[in-house]
Amino acid sequence: MGILHAVSASLLDRDGLRERIGVELAAFLAERAAELAEISADLGSVATTIRDFVLDGGKRLRPAFGYWGWRGAGGTATSDAAVVRAVAALELVHAGALIHDDVMDGSATRRGAASVHERFADLHRSSAWTGAPAGFGRAAAILLGDLTLVWADEMLASARLSIESVGRARPAYDAMRTEVMAGQYLDVLAQAQPSVTASQALRVARYKSAKYTVERPLHLGGLLHGCSTALLDCYSAYGVPVGEAFQLRDDLLGVYGDPGVTGKPAGDDLREGKRTALIALALEHGSNSEVAVVQRLLGDPLLDDAGVATLRAAIDDSGAPARVEALITERLDRGVVALAGGQVEPVAAAVLAGLAEMSATRHA
Amino acid sequence: MGILHAVSASLLDRDGLRERIGVELAAFLAERAAELAEISADLGSVATTIRDFVLDGGKRLRPAFGYWGWRGAGGTATSDAAVVRAVAALELVHAGALIHDDVMDGSATRRGAASVHERFADLHRSSAWTGAPAGFGRAAAILLGDLTLVWADEMLASARLSIESVGRARPAYDAMRTEVMAGQYLDVLAQAQPSVTASQALRVARYKSAKYTVERPLHLGGLLHGCSTALLDCYSAYGVPVGEAFQLRDDLLGVYGDPGVTGKPAGDDLREGKRTALIALALEHGSNSEVAVVQRLLGDPLLDDAGVATLRAAIDDSGAPARVEALITERLDRGVVALAGGQVEPVAAAVLAGLAEMSATRHA
Repeated sequence: MGILHAVSASLLDRDGLRERIGVELAAFLAERAAELAEISADLGSVATTIRDFVLDGGKRLRPAFGYWGWRGAGGTATSDAAVVRAVAALELVHAGALIHDDVMDGSATRRGAASVHERFADLHRSSAWTGAPAGFGRAAAILLGDLTLVWADEMLASARLSIESVGRARPAYDAMRTEVMAGQYLDVLAQAQPSVTASQALRVARYKSAKYTVERPLHLGGLLHGCSTALLDCYSAYGVPVGEAFQLRDDLLGVYGDPGVTGKPAGDDLREGKRTALIALALEHGSNSEVAVVQRLLGDPLLDDAGVATLRAAIDDSGAPARVEALITERLDRGVVALAGGQVEPVAAAVLAGLAEMSATRHA
Repeated sequence: MGILHAVSASLLDRDGLRERIGVELAAFLAERAAELAEISADLGSVATTIRDFVLDGGKRLRPAFGYWGWRGAGGTATSDAAVVRAVAALELVHAGALIHDDVMDGSATRRGAASVHERFADLHRSSAWTGAPAGFGRAAAILLGDLTLVWADEMLASARLSIESVGRARPAYDAMRTEVMAGQYLDVLAQAQPSVTASQALRVARYKSAKYTVERPLHLGGLLHGCSTALLDCYSAYGVPVGEAFQLRDDLLGVYGDPGVTGKPAGDDLREGKRTALIALALEHGSNSEVAVVQRLLGDPLLDDAGVATLRAAIDDSGAPARVEALITERLDRGVVALAGGQVEPVAAAVLAGLAEMSATRHA
């Protein structure tokens, strides 16, 4: 793990990108905090919670794909903050989506810390306010997610890029937002079905993850610079399979990942009963007894460590993890091949190949 | 009521505005429905629910103020749909805010029909899906609200106005979105306090309603046309008090309104325990026995019709409704006087005076 981790960290850090994204986000959020402070001192906890949530965590993967989409179209490495500011807006979209996702799932933690609705429920409790802390926390988190989403949009529009450039890129940004919410709805819908096929799970992954995390950020970056339709097609041919591989790896990490590395409690995906491609494949290909174990234990919110171990073993024995690994490899290969056509500027192509590898083989 | 209702309906209909707003919203939402249908047929209920929610109701008050802000700056009545499309985006911001507001409050109804989260809980029940219908409904409504909010932004950007024009108006639009969410948070926070002063309640009304419903839409319209700082100041001097009057009237209607006209079940604001300026004034000025009744019954979710009547009578006896009426009149007068400076184009000034009257004296 050490080597891959080092590779991925350095890739996400090329051109000092990670730090520059953080600087832009911090500056933008400080402006917003000042705007809120003018309205009322009571909004201090809103501003600091969003700032902490955005600045304390996250791989900055979507801004990175946005940046390399711009580089791949011929953008040159530069200290100019405008493009970095524009793509950093993707991190705010993502923060808003995560804040709402945690409310929808009732998740108490995110990135190893309390989720936003839990932080506000705690504020309610420690302040001894009236009413239900949980209801207050949920209401606050819905509003904070809304605020973060609309701020994303404001951040993109306020980047010091030409109006033409932003106007050109906007359709990709708009499509991305509709697709991620559509994908999220399809996911919620899938979780409410008695069973989900692997192909249904992959469709959710395509919209909720692949297009949102990889393809559309690349399009956004390419269009900010100005690029050919051929380059956009190349970004799709790379981005969709690589993004699906990213999600398939996420499914595996949700069941077999090391909580100390992922920041997610072990077994939570199993207790929650997430209907991923991994689970669908276990149900499609497992023996009768393996299928029976999955059907009996998956989605049991009170599943203890022994139950988690039993369920993991049944999924393992069904051969589903190996099938998912094969799907990941096939997608990774397909994505990397798409880069070989010479459309993408060489340095960017090399970084994107590395990011594909990282997305497919990461441990957190 | 008949006369005032007729006046308000015709005011909101001047220049065929109401219908033209509906046409623009229907056209934009049909494009989005087609986009969702390309992703999956399973998104049909998402598209139709948003469409029905947006097209079936609402006074179109915010687009109306946006339009008259544009006319007041010198925009001429025209069949050109671009400005109408731009200001109609405000209706989508509002729809998204209402969808989320109902989730936050757990409200089962909106405009006399089922709220969005209830509609999706019903879909879950009638489809006999697995898991909890209420949780599914909430998750779906959070996503639909998000989608409606981001679509608002897309609708504004896609209006066929010059890029300069939209760029000029954007800061007002951005400020409006931050202010309404800040105001909503302050409202949620106020509801969690043991007591709220009238001035705190009025501050919530200023951000959650006055700036959001009247001032910023006027600014947006003015800036879309291009206007002086003096006109923006005039719009503020009119919009803030008129918007506060609008909210104060809302507070009264929430307690004394006719459910057949407001579409809200009688007594719901009282059962919910909303801490409005009306309630604050009852607690500040009521006799000991009136205050005791309010403290005992307000916020009791099981309050029956007799309890509602007792509570209403205590608020009435405290003199709070008359105090609120006086606050409304003072604000209405102040708003109308602000129009008299000659900054606003005369036809628009006359309509805005009428809209102020309507906002302050409406019955629904």
